Amino acid sequence: MVVTDVLRASSAIVTAFMNGVERIIPVGTLEEAKAFKDKGFMVAAERDGIVRDFADFGNSPYNFTAERVRGKQIVYSTTNGTNAIHLASSGQKVLIGAYLNISALAEFIVSEGKDLLVLCAGWKNKFNLEDTLFAGALAEMVLADERYHTICDATLGAIDLFDMARDNMMEYIEKVAQRHRLKKNNLDDVIGYCHTFDQTKLIPILENDYLIAIQNA
Amino acid sequence: MVVTDVLRASSAIVTAFMNGVERIIPVGTLEEAKAFKDKGFMVAAERDGIVRDFADFGNSPYNFTAERVRGKQIVYSTTNGTNAIHLASSGQKVLIGAYLNISALAEFIVSEGKDLLVLCAGWKNKFNLEDTLFAGALAEMVLADERYHTICDATLGAIDLFDMARDNMMEYIEKVAQRHRLKKNNLDDVIGYCHTFDQTKLIPILENDYLIAIQNA
Repeated sequence: MVVTDVLRASSAIVTAFMNGVERIIPVGTLEEAKAFKDKGFMVAAERDGIVRDFADFGNSPYNFTAERVRGKQIVYSTTNGTNAIHLASSGQKVLIGAYLNISALAEFIVSEGKDLLVLCAGWKNKFNLEDTLFAGALAEMVLADERYHTICDATLGAIDLFDMARDNMMEYIEKVAQRHRLKKNNLDDVIGYCHTFDQTKLIPILENDYLIAIQNA
Repeated sequence: MVVTDVLRASSAIVTAFMNGVERIIPVGTLEEAKAFKDKGFMVAAERDGIVRDFADFGNSPYNFTAERVRGKQIVYSTTNGTNAIHLASSGQKVLIGAYLNISALAEFIVSEGKDLLVLCAGWKNKFNLEDTLFAGALAEMVLADERYHTICDATLGAIDLFDMARDNMMEYIEKVAQRHRLKKNNLDDVIGYCHTFDQTKLIPILENDYLIAIQNA
């Protein structure tokens, strides 16, 4: 299972691993995040795009610089992203997906030969376009392997939307609701970066209660 | 609110009104449908595309001929459609939508000046493409009126999928899961008909516990 929250949690998590974070501990509630903070952990926590005052990081990939995160453990709580991680049932591998690591992710899934389920974080339990486009992009890559096929309407629709948007992604993203939410808070500077393909081969994976990064062999 | 289940319940309901049915009583469960049958009502009841043996009709629009339905009351229970009708909360008008009455529906909504929510019946509480395309088509018609606008990602995505499919609807529908379900049961003869625009100006509307048809002034 791949969990994605392109704008911005899963892009931020992948970026943190690119910059050398050792481990990310996802938590669902702000209370849990605050409790970790009180124990001395660095904490990323935002709700509706606003950094909580006790937190060290918000939800922008630009927050997670090498200077701040290399070799560290970070506790991470966001509006949609970490809830999605916790929703992900046990028993199958939970990977974190973003455009930043999409090809590595597709290669890993195909090399394992497992079924793919993409869990789009969406917005407050509702559909959003940016995660759907990502799901379509990833599904299309995986379906290029002849052992894979789908009869799922949601997957087929996501692929069609991605194919429509792919040649002019920034223009398409212009209309999505989350872009306007981010713009209102002056947080839309990361949208281009979050839609950049293949900046890393690292794949965050859930092990027990925390994320580490693995790399395709 | 517009409830749609293009393949096939909402198309069948609109067809029944075109052919002069007086009233349709939607019920959620087969037990309720059977109870009405025992009281002497004509009943439409199917699950997963299969007509129940106690029922007079299945879910095919072709079942609801003028000879059989004119001036009658029919009790209607289907896999997705009637559940959707019952989900529709009270307090706002509940209309039944299909391509067969789509322009009349759009005109009625715009003439009332009310917000539009399209409830896609889908398939067992999951997304399906054929109802999403219909929702996109209807939203696009309503949004042509300058008083209407949307910031909903689901609506924007539905419009884009409809615009992609509109010029070659039958080819697009070829890939949807429900088409394959219907084909397996030799029930796919109605797909072209169910995607035919504007065969009537009648709009089924929920009044108390039953549907009647109204016509735009």
